[in-house]
Amino acid sequence: MPNYTAPVEDMMFLFEKLRDNKNYNELEKYSEVSSELVKDILEEAAKINQNLILPLAIAGDENPAKLENGVVRTPPGYKEAYNKYIEDGWVSLSCDPKYGGQGMPKTVSAFFDEMLSATCLSFKLYSELTIGAYNCISHHATDEMKEKYLPKMVEGKWSGTMCLTEPVCGTDLGLLKTKAVEQSDGTYKISGQKIFITSGDHDLTENIIHLVIARSSDSPSGTKGISLFLVPKFIVKDDGSIGPRNGVSTGSVESKMGIKGSATCVLNFDDAVGYMIGPKNKGLSQMFTMMNLERILVGIQGLGLSEIAYQNSLSYAKERKQGKTNNTKSTNGADFIIEHADIRRSLLNMKSIVEGERALCFWLSQQTEVSLYHPDEKIKQEASDYVSLMTPVVKSLFTDLAMEITSDAMQIHGGYGFTKDQGIEQLYRDNRITPIYEGTNSVQAADLVFRKLSNKNGNIINNFMEMVKTECASKSEKVQIFSKQLEHYLAILSKFNDWIADKSKEGKDDVSAAANDYLKTLGYISLAFSWIKVLEVSFKEYDSNKDFYEDKINTAKFYFDKILPRSEYHYKSAISGSSNIMNFKFN
Amino acid sequence: MPNYTAPVEDMMFLFEKLRDNKNYNELEKYSEVSSELVKDILEEAAKINQNLILPLAIAGDENPAKLENGVVRTPPGYKEAYNKYIEDGWVSLSCDPKYGGQGMPKTVSAFFDEMLSATCLSFKLYSELTIGAYNCISHHATDEMKEKYLPKMVEGKWSGTMCLTEPVCGTDLGLLKTKAVEQSDGTYKISGQKIFITSGDHDLTENIIHLVIARSSDSPSGTKGISLFLVPKFIVKDDGSIGPRNGVSTGSVESKMGIKGSATCVLNFDDAVGYMIGPKNKGLSQMFTMMNLERILVGIQGLGLSEIAYQNSLSYAKERKQGKTNNTKSTNGADFIIEHADIRRSLLNMKSIVEGERALCFWLSQQTEVSLYHPDEKIKQEASDYVSLMTPVVKSLFTDLAMEITSDAMQIHGGYGFTKDQGIEQLYRDNRITPIYEGTNSVQAADLVFRKLSNKNGNIINNFMEMVKTECASKSEKVQIFSKQLEHYLAILSKFNDWIADKSKEGKDDVSAAANDYLKTLGYISLAFSWIKVLEVSFKEYDSNKDFYEDKINTAKFYFDKILPRSEYHYKSAISGSSNIMNFKFN
Repeated sequence: MPNYTAPVEDMMFLFEKLRDNKNYNELEKYSEVSSELVKDILEEAAKINQNLILPLAIAGDENPAKLENGVVRTPPGYKEAYNKYIEDGWVSLSCDPKYGGQGMPKTVSAFFDEMLSATCLSFKLYSELTIGAYNCISHHATDEMKEKYLPKMVEGKWSGTMCLTEPVCGTDLGLLKTKAVEQSDGTYKISGQKIFITSGDHDLTENIIHLVIARSSDSPSGTKGISLFLVPKFIVKDDGSIGPRNGVSTGSVESKMGIKGSATCVLNFDDAVGYMIGPKNKGLSQMFTMMNLERILVGIQGLGLSEIAYQNSLSYAKERKQGKTNNTKSTNGADFIIEHADIRRSLLNMKSIVEGERALCFWLSQQTEVSLYHPDEKIKQEASDYVSLMTPVVKSLFTDLAMEITSDAMQIHGGYGFTKDQGIEQLYRDNRITPIYEGTNSVQAADLVFRKLSNKNGNIINNFMEMVKTECASKSEKVQIFSKQLEHYLAILSKFNDWIADKSKEGKDDVSAAANDYLKTLGYISLAFSWIKVLEVSFKEYDSNKDFYEDKINTAKFYFDKILPRSEYHYKSAISGSSNIMNFKFN
Repeated sequence: MPNYTAPVEDMMFLFEKLRDNKNYNELEKYSEVSSELVKDILEEAAKINQNLILPLAIAGDENPAKLENGVVRTPPGYKEAYNKYIEDGWVSLSCDPKYGGQGMPKTVSAFFDEMLSATCLSFKLYSELTIGAYNCISHHATDEMKEKYLPKMVEGKWSGTMCLTEPVCGTDLGLLKTKAVEQSDGTYKISGQKIFITSGDHDLTENIIHLVIARSSDSPSGTKGISLFLVPKFIVKDDGSIGPRNGVSTGSVESKMGIKGSATCVLNFDDAVGYMIGPKNKGLSQMFTMMNLERILVGIQGLGLSEIAYQNSLSYAKERKQGKTNNTKSTNGADFIIEHADIRRSLLNMKSIVEGERALCFWLSQQTEVSLYHPDEKIKQEASDYVSLMTPVVKSLFTDLAMEITSDAMQIHGGYGFTKDQGIEQLYRDNRITPIYEGTNSVQAADLVFRKLSNKNGNIINNFMEMVKTECASKSEKVQIFSKQLEHYLAILSKFNDWIADKSKEGKDDVSAAANDYLKTLGYISLAFSWIKVLEVSFKEYDSNKDFYEDKINTAKFYFDKILPRSEYHYKSAISGSSNIMNFKFN
C-alpha cells in the first residue's frame, strides 16, 4: 500500500504567505478564518486521510462496487469510514452554515480535496458529487427546496449525483433523449436512461438526490430545450421524512480500469417523480454552475494523485539500491537510486509540477471566492473571468500531468511498479479517468480557445497576460532571473494569442487542431506564474526558514529550466495549421 | 474486443520498395526470399493472428495465468491455440533450417512479431523467450548442446526463459546472489531465487529450458564473476527424451497491471542441475546476445500495440457521432467525431508514428541481418554499430510512444475507453510493461549516451548523421521540402552530440540527467530519417499508386510539422545541465 503524509507544511505556506489577493482578503465572511483555525483543520484532515481513508483505496480496487439483487454495495470498509467521515463533518466543510455547513472558503476546502484525492479518489467521489449537487441546488432552487434537501446533504446523510450522459450523448448534451412530462400538480414524470453516473447508487446514505437534465415534452430540440430536475431516489415527504421509492433503478455498475470502488452506474428513470429546478429550458446553464466547480475539482484530483505518486517514488528511491552513480564512493555494491542523476531529474519533475499546481490552485481558490462573494460587481466579474479562463487549464493540464507523474512513478519502481504489491500502478489507473470525465481534455481545450479567451467584458487572456507581466516586473533582482526566462515564453504566448485570434475569424479548424497545444502552452506558463509568486516570497523571507525556501527556489529552477520549455514546442506544433489534417483521407 | 487487420499492404510496401540496403541484398542466404513468398507468409500470419490469437488477449486478462497446486495454468484457450501455432510452424519462422527452422530473415519475422504483439502480447511472450534462448544457445553453446536442445525449441515443444533478475538486482546484475557449484561430472548445482521470470513456468510445453546467470563458487564478485547456465525444468536424457524433474520450482506467479495471461514467475532453484554455456565468467556478455535482440523485439511490441490502438480509434471515430464540427452541414444532430479537427490530429499523430516506426524497424532489420551474416567484416561491423546505436532508441522510443498512443486511444473512446467493454484500456495496461522490462527506458538511455555513441571503431553517431544527411541530400525537389525541415533538427542533434561529448569528459552527471532527452531527440530524428526514405519512394512512384502514396506523403507531412519539433524541446531541456538536480536536498 502506498504511504501518504499530507503536505500540511506546504499548504500552510500558501495560506499564510500567498494569500495575496486584496479582494479576497476583503471578504467579510472569511474574516475569522485564521491561520490557527486552518492549521487545526488541516491537521485533523491529515489524520483522517492518512489513517482511515488511505486503506480504502486498495480495498476498493480489490473488491469493486457491485450490483447485488438490485442493491449497489460499496467495497468493504467504505460504510464504516463514511459514517465516521460525516460524523466528523467533512462533507460540510465548505457548505453554508445556514444549512449546517462550516462555511470554509475554497482556499481551505481545496486542500482537503487534494488530500482526499490522494488517499482514495473512489471514496471521495461519493461525497464530491453531493457538494456539486449542493452547489447547484443552492444557486438555482427555490427556498422551499433548499430547506427540504440541503441540510441532509450537508450532513452527508443524503448524497447527490449529476445525471447528464446518455448512450448517445456524452460531450454533446443537445442529443439527449430523457423526457420530462409535466403533471397536473406541477411535478414531472422523468423517463430515460442515464449512463456513467458516478455514485448513481450505493449503500452509504439514506437517500440519493439526482440532478437530472431532461427534455420537457413541449421543449425544442438541441441544447435550448434542456431543463433541470431534482429526482430523489426515495420521495421525501413534506415533513422531511423518507417516503416511497421513486421510479429510478440501477441497470448495471460499470467494470472499469480504475476507481473501482466508485459505483459508476447505468440509471433507468421510469416515470420517476421530478421537480424542476429554475426556469424551463435553462437546465444546461444551471448544470454548468455545478460543472465548472467540478472541473476544477477534477484538476485537484490529478494534483492529489500526483502528490502521493511523488511521495512514494521519493521514499522508494531512498531505499532501493541499484547501479553505481558517476561519482560513486562504494567500492562494491550499488548506490541508492536517489543518487542517480536521472532518477533525481524524474523526482524533481514531479515535485516542481505538484508544488506549482498547488500554488496555482491556491491563487485560483482566492479568485473563485472573489467571483462568488465580492460585493463589487466589477471586481466579481473580473475574478469570474479568470476562473473561467483557468477552469479548462486546471482540469486538463493537472490531469494530463498526473498521468505523466503516476506513470513515471511506476517507472521509478521498475518491475515492482507494474505488479500489484505496492499499489503504484493503481495510482495510474485511478487517475486515468480524470482526463476523460467532466468533459474530456479535448473538450476543455476547445472550450478554452473558442469561449474563454475573450467575452463581452473584453479580452480576458490579455488581462491575464498583463497580470502575469506585472507579477514579473515588480520583483527583486533574484526573481528577475526567473522573470526573464518567463518573458521569453510570454512573448511566444502573445504570438500564439494573436494567431488564435486571427484564425478564429476564418480558420476555425486551425484553432480546433491547435486547441490542445494552446492549452498546454498557457498551462505551463500559468504554472510558471505561480512559481514566480512563490519565488518572490522565498527570496524575501529566505532568512526566516532557509531550508524551506532553498528547496522552493531550487524546485522552481528545475521547473523553469526543464519543463517550461515545453510550451514553445506546443506553439511550433500548432502553428503549422490544419489544412493537411482536414484534407487527409482516412481509409 | 478490439478489432485487428494486419497491415500487410504497408509491410509489403516496405519489403518491396524499401529493401534498399545493398549489403543486405547481397546476402546469399536470403536470395530465395521473394516477394511472393513473403506475401504468402504475411497473409497466413494475418489469418492466424486475426482469427485465433486476437481473442486470447481478453481471455488472458479476465483469467490470468495462475499457480495451482504447484502447476502454472495458462488462461483458457491458450493451450489449444499454442498447439495450432506450433503445428503451423510459427515459432520456427526465423530459426536455422539446420534445427528445423524456416530461415526467414528479420525483415520478415519482425512483421510477424508486430502482428503477434498487436493481437496478444501475453501469448506471444511464451514463444518470444524461446527464440531469445534459441539465439543465445545457438551463438554460445557447444554443438552437442545445440543438437540436444534446439530442435525441440524450434518445434515449439519446449520453451525457453531468461533468468536474470533477483530480488535485489534488476538493472544491476553485478549484485546477483544465485550460486553455481561445480560437480565432479562437470555439471553445476544451481541455487538461488530468480524473480520476474517471463514464462518461467506454464502448461504449454513438455519442457522449459531456463537460461540462468549465476556466480560460480570460485568466481569474483560483481559483473565479472557471472556465468551462464542451461537449466532444464526436466532433465533431458542422452537419447533426447524427458527425464526426471530438476530442482526448479515456482514460488509464485505475479499479479500485474497488464499482460495477465503471461505467467511472470518467482523461480526457486534448489541444487538444480545446470550446464555451463560458453566460458566461465563471461555469462553477462553471452546473455547480452539475447538481450539486444530482445530489446528490439520489445520496441516492436510497442509498435504492434500502437497499431491496434490506432485501428480501433479510427473505426470508433468513424461510427461515433458527437458535437458539431466548424463546417457542419448537419442542421440537427451531431457529426461523426472523425470530422473534428482535434480527433483527426490525434489519429494522424498515431498513424505517423506507427508507420514511421515500422519503416525504421524495417531499415534496422536489414542492418541486423548484415551485422549477423555479411561476409565482409568491415561491413558487418558497421551494421553492428548501427544496430547497437538504434537498439536503445527503438526499445525506449517505441514503447514510450506506445504509451502515448494507447492512452490517446482511450481518450478518443471517452468513457467507453475507461470501461472494460471495448478492451481499449487493456491495450494501455498490456503495453505498460514494455518501458520497464528488458532494462527500463532510463537504463536504455544511459546505455545510449555512455556506450553507444562511439566505440573503438570510431564515432558511430557521426556516421549515422552522415548517413541521414546523405539520405536528405540526394533527393527530388519535393523531398527537399522535408529534408530542409529535418536539417534544422539535425543541426540541433549535432550541437547536442557535441554537448554530450564535451560533458562526458568532466560532467558525467550532466550526461546522465540529459540521457532521456537525448534519446528522444535522436529517436524523433531517426523516425524522420525513415520518413525521408518513404517519401523518396512515394514521390518517385506516385503515379503507380496515387492513393497509397498520397496517404504516405500527407502522413509524413504531419510528422514533420507536428511531432519532429519535439526534438528541439528535449535539447533545450537537457542543456540546462544537472548541477541544480545533483545539489538538490530531497527531504
